Amino acid sequence: MAKINGGFLNLKENYLFIEIGRKVREYIEKNPDKPIIRMGIGDVTLPLAPIVVEAMEKAAAEMGVKETFRGYEDSGRGYPFLREAIAGYFKGFGVNLEPDEILISDGAKSDCGNITDIFSTDSVVMVSDPVYPVYVDSSIMNGKKIIYADATEQTGFAPVIPQNAKADIIYLCSPNNPTGSVFTKEQLKEWVDFALSNNAVIIYDSAYEAFISDARLPRSIFSIEGARKCAVEIGSLSKTAGFTGTRCGYTIVPKELEFYDDKGNSYSVLKYWSRRQGSKFNGVPYIVQRGAEAVFTPEGLRQTKESIDYYMENARIMTETFDALGISYTGGKNSPYIWFKCNMPSWDFFDLLLSQKQIVGTPGSGFGKNGEGMFRLTAFGTRENTIEAMKRVTELLSK
Amino acid sequence: MAKINGGFLNLKENYLFIEIGRKVREYIEKNPDKPIIRMGIGDVTLPLAPIVVEAMEKAAAEMGVKETFRGYEDSGRGYPFLREAIAGYFKGFGVNLEPDEILISDGAKSDCGNITDIFSTDSVVMVSDPVYPVYVDSSIMNGKKIIYADATEQTGFAPVIPQNAKADIIYLCSPNNPTGSVFTKEQLKEWVDFALSNNAVIIYDSAYEAFISDARLPRSIFSIEGARKCAVEIGSLSKTAGFTGTRCGYTIVPKELEFYDDKGNSYSVLKYWSRRQGSKFNGVPYIVQRGAEAVFTPEGLRQTKESIDYYMENARIMTETFDALGISYTGGKNSPYIWFKCNMPSWDFFDLLLSQKQIVGTPGSGFGKNGEGMFRLTAFGTRENTIEAMKRVTELLSK
Repeated sequence: MAKINGGFLNLKENYLFIEIGRKVREYIEKNPDKPIIRMGIGDVTLPLAPIVVEAMEKAAAEMGVKETFRGYEDSGRGYPFLREAIAGYFKGFGVNLEPDEILISDGAKSDCGNITDIFSTDSVVMVSDPVYPVYVDSSIMNGKKIIYADATEQTGFAPVIPQNAKADIIYLCSPNNPTGSVFTKEQLKEWVDFALSNNAVIIYDSAYEAFISDARLPRSIFSIEGARKCAVEIGSLSKTAGFTGTRCGYTIVPKELEFYDDKGNSYSVLKYWSRRQGSKFNGVPYIVQRGAEAVFTPEGLRQTKESIDYYMENARIMTETFDALGISYTGGKNSPYIWFKCNMPSWDFFDLLLSQKQIVGTPGSGFGKNGEGMFRLTAFGTRENTIEAMKRVTELLSK
Repeated sequence: MAKINGGFLNLKENYLFIEIGRKVREYIEKNPDKPIIRMGIGDVTLPLAPIVVEAMEKAAAEMGVKETFRGYEDSGRGYPFLREAIAGYFKGFGVNLEPDEILISDGAKSDCGNITDIFSTDSVVMVSDPVYPVYVDSSIMNGKKIIYADATEQTGFAPVIPQNAKADIIYLCSPNNPTGSVFTKEQLKEWVDFALSNNAVIIYDSAYEAFISDARLPRSIFSIEGARKCAVEIGSLSKTAGFTGTRCGYTIVPKELEFYDDKGNSYSVLKYWSRRQGSKFNGVPYIVQRGAEAVFTPEGLRQTKESIDYYMENARIMTETFDALGISYTGGKNSPYIWFKCNMPSWDFFDLLLSQKQIVGTPGSGFGKNGEGMFRLTAFGTRENTIEAMKRVTELLSK
């Protein structure tokens, strides 16, 4: 008899963004004349950079000509041209990687979810609270135990290491989704030391690293001493270059990184992640890889930086508004998320903001208990919508 | 301490195609002057159809314009335009599906590998012997038990139901990779009845359905009565439309299909597969989905059929050669694979064919014990190479 994986029955029924989608649809049905400003889901709004579009058009044309057509990639781990481009990008902020340590994927979400598959199901997974739900759901699905590191107002909404805690796998995200907090080198070094002392592996989600403009803040965990022995880093072009609908990310697994069997024998994480991908994944479209390669050229970085600057100007307008209102928040600097105190249950504020001001945000409580009373807005909207939304937020909250 | 998932330690060390790749590289290094004819891995060689290239170029251009840019897909399960196009394609051979039952993915390999994640780890998985290694490896990775249904010379290399066998999950592939055998409706009905009587779920890999020209043969398991209550079907554009490097497939999960918990409560497979994909996958590139949509237009089907006809003419040349040599084989009709008796251990024949005739094929034993003494060649080469290879095979085997 075909039986369900019991892990799936332990999942909470409603995925946060599904619930938001449902509420928004209901509102629109009842109020078709009131246009909505969406600042909820972290999706970009600016088009792809011209250099990326040109690269993909050229690659599409190549696929139509016998001499330049590409079938299966040899490895399924990404074309050397893209792995080398990403290694070059990291070198630009002082991190040396071998192209072989970089595996190209269809996005950070897939890799964040799939990578726990190579770890034992009796692993203890530490995540922050609040947390991006994918880390939790994918761990619960394959039967792993979850423990939490609190990120609260007192800690600036950055997770801190719980006293006497033990963990086998640790998910960290900086700049943080949802709280917008960004680890300093000192904070991140504490996590690296903790992982090393536990023989744990950190899964470091750096999807938002391109938003860091303060040169003192680490853009990669591999700028921290010791991290190559305890960390995997998952990057994304979704926010860096507007690839949310184009799908390309990468996972960096240092050659030194090891994990263990019950007898204490050690195994290469890179080898087994490659094996997992080799058996259950077949690479990213050639066309998309050419588009991604273009992102990492000097002109590509210049063009994509224009979009990031645009979003960060939105973030500045938002933080200015919250400063003027005297509302406490994290993020908005080195991060496209603003995470603020809404002074009521998060879902109540969601309903209020939607019904009174037609703005869709994300209730902090959807990310964990420490998110209760908090609310997330994103800087990924248009300038006009951001300005209009902040006008409405000011009307609502200065009463 | 970070521990490895023990399932990974039960995998055999060498993935078949990696070993072939290693041997070929070694041969080329030692014999740089002897050009190789590749008939091993099932990769296509003809370019994408013009209509597909045009659709992707247009979609790439759309992504560069604010008004037509696409970010995240709402559902991550595929745009309605593509799901409807695939439903229309199935309707063309008499199978009615709701677009909601079709989930778009980055390829059949990913779905074949990932779908067992939603089933209990104590499931018994039945596969044929010989078998496409992905079914086995992905099941072993998550701790499932494998049993085999023999496909031998006596059965025309189609798997038959073992006596008194019980299984929870059954992988079937027709047209078969690697043996080229194709189920008749009667044979497939036996498997459906067996699955129904076991409350088992069939995972039906139909990646090669477009090669079926005999109208009496089933192109979908859903043309068999009862299949909607016991089967999932996984399709691919890789071979149908040359998408091996473009990456698009789909999985069909009927709304009626259920699986069970230990207490016998039933759950919708569609719901939990959607949940898995919603948490660990973020959809296929918009550009690729537009290319895939073009495949299923009347003109797209006409253009892609031209490529299939080209490959099947290769297959005809190959079967003609083996007929003339009096060598017994399956496939080559309604299938791009020719699976023949090589009258020695398969790897010995691999080495012989490579060293004497510079042809790369795939040793049958790499697919299972029943493949020992057998060898697979593909019809995906160029016409010139296919003719040249058959000349060389004739020289080698008519001695």
